[in-house]
Amino acid sequence: MKATPNFSKSADGLLPVIVQDWKSGEILMQAYINQEAWEKTLATGLGTYWSRSRQEIWVKGLTSGHLQHIKQILLDCDLDSIVFKVVSDGDVACHEGYRSCFFREVGPDGELRHLPEYPKK
Amino acid sequence: MKATPNFSKSADGLLPVIVQDWKSGEILMQAYINQEAWEKTLATGLGTYWSRSRQEIWVKGLTSGHLQHIKQILLDCDLDSIVFKVVSDGDVACHEGYRSCFFREVGPDGELRHLPEYPKK
Repeated sequence: MKATPNFSKSADGLLPVIVQDWKSGEILMQAYINQEAWEKTLATGLGTYWSRSRQEIWVKGLTSGHLQHIKQILLDCDLDSIVFKVVSDGDVACHEGYRSCFFREVGPDGELRHLPEYPKK
Repeated sequence: MKATPNFSKSADGLLPVIVQDWKSGEILMQAYINQEAWEKTLATGLGTYWSRSRQEIWVKGLTSGHLQHIKQILLDCDLDSIVFKVVSDGDVACHEGYRSCFFREVGPDGELRHLPEYPKK
């Protein structure tokens, strides 16, 4: 079966993509993708998304230099969620300058807590 | 800062949750959550979601027995994406009977390929 996510499953034609570090398994970020960004990712081997804020195709790292080289693509049982396993140029996935966008946890007191394993780069 | 995802970021009040195995780092599934399911998760320590197909609150594993015990909750930089790190009762996250919903990859020929590390349970 040809591997095509079911973009019709969402009203806006966007599906979530989970970006995971190829070696460590760390979750680096979560973005959205549409059919065009999917095809560009397959054609170029670079993580390519749909920017909801800018409303345009977004090659991650094209301006920052932190390109994401695709090592493996997984699809889920319903074909409406995607995992990109990547090797990143540089070590910064987050626009705030951290290795991962998920640099904060919910602490035992219910407050947001910055995790020490994510220093600002 | 009190840890609250920004549910107003999505038109339908739903945000994606990435469910990751606490020990292995494997991504098990991706679901959606709303404010009510978020609060139930915090109150019970069990992964609780919004079922888009059934349009109801869904405690994962309540019928199958594969409950997800929350070990850590991460929020991303924009507070609109969530990671639950969990320990699952049983070893089946996918309703099709696999350890992870992401049991298929896009092969080199562009075809969907079932990964050998995911035998049917």
